[in-house]
Amino acid sequence: MSASEIDVVIRLLSKLPGLGPRSARRATLHLLEKKENILVPLATALQDISDKVCACTTCGNFDSQPVCHICRDTGRHESRICVVETVSDLWALERSRAWDGRYHVLGGVLNALDGTGPGDLNIDSLLERVGDGQVEEIVLALGATVEGQTTAHYLAERLADQPVDISRLAHGVPVGGELEFLDDGTLSQALKARRPV
Amino acid sequence: MSASEIDVVIRLLSKLPGLGPRSARRATLHLLEKKENILVPLATALQDISDKVCACTTCGNFDSQPVCHICRDTGRHESRICVVETVSDLWALERSRAWDGRYHVLGGVLNALDGTGPGDLNIDSLLERVGDGQVEEIVLALGATVEGQTTAHYLAERLADQPVDISRLAHGVPVGGELEFLDDGTLSQALKARRPV
Repeated sequence: MSASEIDVVIRLLSKLPGLGPRSARRATLHLLEKKENILVPLATALQDISDKVCACTTCGNFDSQPVCHICRDTGRHESRICVVETVSDLWALERSRAWDGRYHVLGGVLNALDGTGPGDLNIDSLLERVGDGQVEEIVLALGATVEGQTTAHYLAERLADQPVDISRLAHGVPVGGELEFLDDGTLSQALKARRPV
Repeated sequence: MSASEIDVVIRLLSKLPGLGPRSARRATLHLLEKKENILVPLATALQDISDKVCACTTCGNFDSQPVCHICRDTGRHESRICVVETVSDLWALERSRAWDGRYHVLGGVLNALDGTGPGDLNIDSLLERVGDGQVEEIVLALGATVEGQTTAHYLAERLADQPVDISRLAHGVPVGGELEFLDDGTLSQALKARRPV
């Protein structure tokens, strides 16, 4: 159909989330058509992150330094750690600008079905950080899924003997959300956790 | 939010068709997580097509050789040229395995609105190929849009004094299509061009 070099790009792009074989083909053609504007800089940029970017040795965030810019930032509270499932969640929290502490990326959640146990997650390194005695507060910012909440419970137990405050994110009505379209679980949680105005 | 090298990749990926800022972020994270399996080979593959792939000097298809593998293929009829708007259309026809001749990529269609005139399309090179006297048949496989049909008419006029058969693709009911959901134009074309069973 096309040159084998092009097929390799299509095959690799189609492995990205959100892209199938069809859109990977469109994207590849777009790259070839915009060679100077996108293809060349993208090839360089990918080589660049491939060479430089690694998981932060402390928290697991991706950065071009061995210790990420959040862990290096002395303006942020070292005593507060927000535990997240993925780097994607970390980025989402950073975009919200709502957290002024550090993070810890678990790399997933406990899941009996796909066989993810405590040994597969970055739990030991979290306990190690907490064991240093610097940490005062831990927020378990895990998904409100069965697996996320199971993992939160498990972590709370493992951290029970440490002198840290442990909390989880509030459940409730999303800002901008309409009651009509919310599921029963969210509505009942929001009602239980109602607050005086 | 993240290391600047990562932001560059997100920005470039978000320029691809079908990817917005959000899905570009997801794709970038996926690349970083699957470094050895996708990121490294993709960086190499993009560098590869950037170095090697060019538009075929004869037909405009993308290939790693100056003359593409279709134009080099002596098993295909040199006397038949299928004129298409884009390389994407060429690939679609190749996947259908329905064409055993050569191609000519116009690089677009005439469009008064965005100012695409005959000079912006690969029309001169088509006339040159036809002028060699080898070509016997030209199929105008352009889109069934106003612009596509305008371009087909324009090309038919320009080629009128050449001893070639000029045809266009049939209009009608798409295979697998239900009449109920077809537009009036398609239905009336399909009825006018009805064929004995």
